[in-house]
Amino acid sequence: MSRRTLRTPPGMRDFLPSEKRQREWVIGRIRAVFERFGYEPIETPALELLETLKGKLGEEGEQLLFKVLRRGTALEDLRLGRVSQVTVTDYDEVVDYALPYDLTVPFSRFLAMHPNLPRPFKRYQIQRVWRAEKPQRGRYREFYQCDVDVAGSESMLADAEIITVAIEALLELGFTDFRTRIGHRKILDGLVEWAGGAERFTDICVSIDKLEKIGLSGVREELARREVPQEVAARLLGQLTETGEASAQLTRLERTLADTRNGPAGIAEMRELLDALAAMGLPQDRYLFDLNLARGLDYYTGPVFETFVETPPIGSLTGGGRYDDLIGRFSGQPLAATGTSIGLERILDVMQEFDMLPTSRAVSEVLVTIFDDASRIPALRLAAELRRAGICTEFPLRRTKGLRQQIAYASSKQIPLLAILGPDELREDRVTLRAGPGNQRSVARADVAAEARRFLQELVRTPA
Amino acid sequence: MSRRTLRTPPGMRDFLPSEKRQREWVIGRIRAVFERFGYEPIETPALELLETLKGKLGEEGEQLLFKVLRRGTALEDLRLGRVSQVTVTDYDEVVDYALPYDLTVPFSRFLAMHPNLPRPFKRYQIQRVWRAEKPQRGRYREFYQCDVDVAGSESMLADAEIITVAIEALLELGFTDFRTRIGHRKILDGLVEWAGGAERFTDICVSIDKLEKIGLSGVREELARREVPQEVAARLLGQLTETGEASAQLTRLERTLADTRNGPAGIAEMRELLDALAAMGLPQDRYLFDLNLARGLDYYTGPVFETFVETPPIGSLTGGGRYDDLIGRFSGQPLAATGTSIGLERILDVMQEFDMLPTSRAVSEVLVTIFDDASRIPALRLAAELRRAGICTEFPLRRTKGLRQQIAYASSKQIPLLAILGPDELREDRVTLRAGPGNQRSVARADVAAEARRFLQELVRTPA
Repeated sequence: MSRRTLRTPPGMRDFLPSEKRQREWVIGRIRAVFERFGYEPIETPALELLETLKGKLGEEGEQLLFKVLRRGTALEDLRLGRVSQVTVTDYDEVVDYALPYDLTVPFSRFLAMHPNLPRPFKRYQIQRVWRAEKPQRGRYREFYQCDVDVAGSESMLADAEIITVAIEALLELGFTDFRTRIGHRKILDGLVEWAGGAERFTDICVSIDKLEKIGLSGVREELARREVPQEVAARLLGQLTETGEASAQLTRLERTLADTRNGPAGIAEMRELLDALAAMGLPQDRYLFDLNLARGLDYYTGPVFETFVETPPIGSLTGGGRYDDLIGRFSGQPLAATGTSIGLERILDVMQEFDMLPTSRAVSEVLVTIFDDASRIPALRLAAELRRAGICTEFPLRRTKGLRQQIAYASSKQIPLLAILGPDELREDRVTLRAGPGNQRSVARADVAAEARRFLQELVRTPA
Repeated sequence: MSRRTLRTPPGMRDFLPSEKRQREWVIGRIRAVFERFGYEPIETPALELLETLKGKLGEEGEQLLFKVLRRGTALEDLRLGRVSQVTVTDYDEVVDYALPYDLTVPFSRFLAMHPNLPRPFKRYQIQRVWRAEKPQRGRYREFYQCDVDVAGSESMLADAEIITVAIEALLELGFTDFRTRIGHRKILDGLVEWAGGAERFTDICVSIDKLEKIGLSGVREELARREVPQEVAARLLGQLTETGEASAQLTRLERTLADTRNGPAGIAEMRELLDALAAMGLPQDRYLFDLNLARGLDYYTGPVFETFVETPPIGSLTGGGRYDDLIGRFSGQPLAATGTSIGLERILDVMQEFDMLPTSRAVSEVLVTIFDDASRIPALRLAAELRRAGICTEFPLRRTKGLRQQIAYASSKQIPLLAILGPDELREDRVTLRAGPGNQRSVARADVAAEARRFLQELVRTPA
């Protein structure tokens, strides 16, 4: 195999032990928050029928799917050299599965297939998803999502809880300066109707969603490019740039959108949501009503939310919203649902950059050394005994030239303690425990597990 | 979406919360054993270059790969209806990635790409892999493997440790009656050479490996079907059916295979391995030398091992071996390696069937109930306070008609404790904690977290 092909697919990564342990630490903290609110874990496959994912993400999303070749087609004959060419006339004949783009669509399919779960059904799901986007710094083609959702509750209490869980997760990880922006699709819908652009709702949402990124003039240009009539754009942008207290904004919008189809319901829900958030005990400065937050995906129907870290200015770490129609598209039975996704990769990148991760600790606590052939069997026994006492213990697995080489190995793996069983120790029925030059103690063979445990605890308290 | 397509791909499963928690419990126990021996976690992507997987598994394995369509080919135009047919002449032009069939090949690619890791490198890896086999009871197309491997040690101590780790993992899970059979590819190689079938080594191994399953006459037929000359088959089968103590067998084989290329080295290694296993402190009846164990995969070069559970007679739960050439096929630098894979799905199926799994416990410990609108805000505050004390607490997220409905929800989710905050409790600044009819206590509001924790601990000790 040539060097050229010795690689992972672009945007997909190996994780070394130190990285994997950091990921597990962060996932463990997030999971603990999810469980503290009573969310339960589920899992869905890494492949879904293409049919399941189709028509849920918009064409932009569908282009980003990794698709799987159907088994046993004529293309397999081509692979085996049995034929020299194959003509394909039906795409679905050669492709049947795809790797999920997010966890919301698989979760909706899951709910439609399991109608008898307790309602509301509160689940979390921490898995990899895949998107064939252009890989770049901080953007991967394979990445973890941490999703938390409630299905079977139309109450704004559910949205308030989801927003609270996401905020608590970020606090748990040590983030302090962030705010959750909350928009509402029904209010936007009312606004777009009022502005006279109802039939262009999706295009308008996609453009408005970029306001933070590309500014007002950018959105104006984008709306023009998407051929949204100028007077519609002007009316919209006039409203979107109004600021002020949430309650004042909602009162103003109430008047403006009084005659629209969805505006009044959206405003009532938004008020209910803000009341619920206050009751949840979240400090007021953690969240705000943001009329401009639209979010790209097709399936949102109510509140949408996104948490932005402000100092350092690293942008969005979580995002989600209510999707009351998606599950019904699978089952025919509507089921209200809301949830959010926590972007693990971005969190890890940021925590790494700003030194927010705990020092990585090796798995192994003790390396039992081999002095010579005579001490090999007693040393193996010693290792087995330490393991039985629950101490993570390594034994040298290659022929070593002496203690120095074994010390170098222990140090390269950050193993804190050596257990030395040389001729003197064997004769006196003792073991030398060594944490570093000058920091060693001789203990009775019978007490070795307890002494090693005590020594390790002292080392944790007083790091070198 | 029609009912017909409301499904997961065949052989790939959703896991409900109770199943997911059981899986995590089993994985947690296995991981604890791996770490006790100093193995560290890594992760590799769910997609590998097709090039990476090609030529490592044999054609039988390659047919089982799920392959991924290259992005942006003419087939994409077919999907979008821009063309009505596409002629493909080069398979590699339309396919570039595949989902890994096992974790050994990705690990070998990983090692070749990361040459500066400490040696020996001891890793474990617990991930899903995919095989397009015919799905049937107990055989899935997506399943977890728990792999544990040592790279960079040629010593039989490494193989002995791997065998020991797998045995300890099964003991940790509560299996008691099982044995690890240990064969050796070099001894088989010597035997096949001696029998005159050297050029048919792979075919012969695949056949011999089925001895346990299809019996002696089955293997004889299979060898005939694969056109292995009858006299070769007869000589082989004569040797393979010899039994007896390992040391007696090895002494006999030493004479028989004295003039073969690999036999003598295999016999010496096998002796070294059996000595190391005895030194590891494993009881003698946990493992045995089994000349017939060949294992199917192409890449094994030394000892091969498989653990069979004997009562109940459920067959193989772990399997692995030494593969000293595989990593060098990627990097050009040979690197000795040995490891084993623990079949998580089979273990879960068996533990389920034989009632070896712990009772599934819900995540939530307390449901705070809502009595009326007036108690809603104090109830939300109570829930927040319990969570801050680390108690997993739920709050009703849908409008409920009264306590009865909330009790039904708690019971459907197996939530052990209700926290009731009615008008009396609010007036007296107390909370009622209720575990069931007649089992409730009134506690001061200020002590609620500590009292709830105590009540929960008592419930664990005296289950209903």
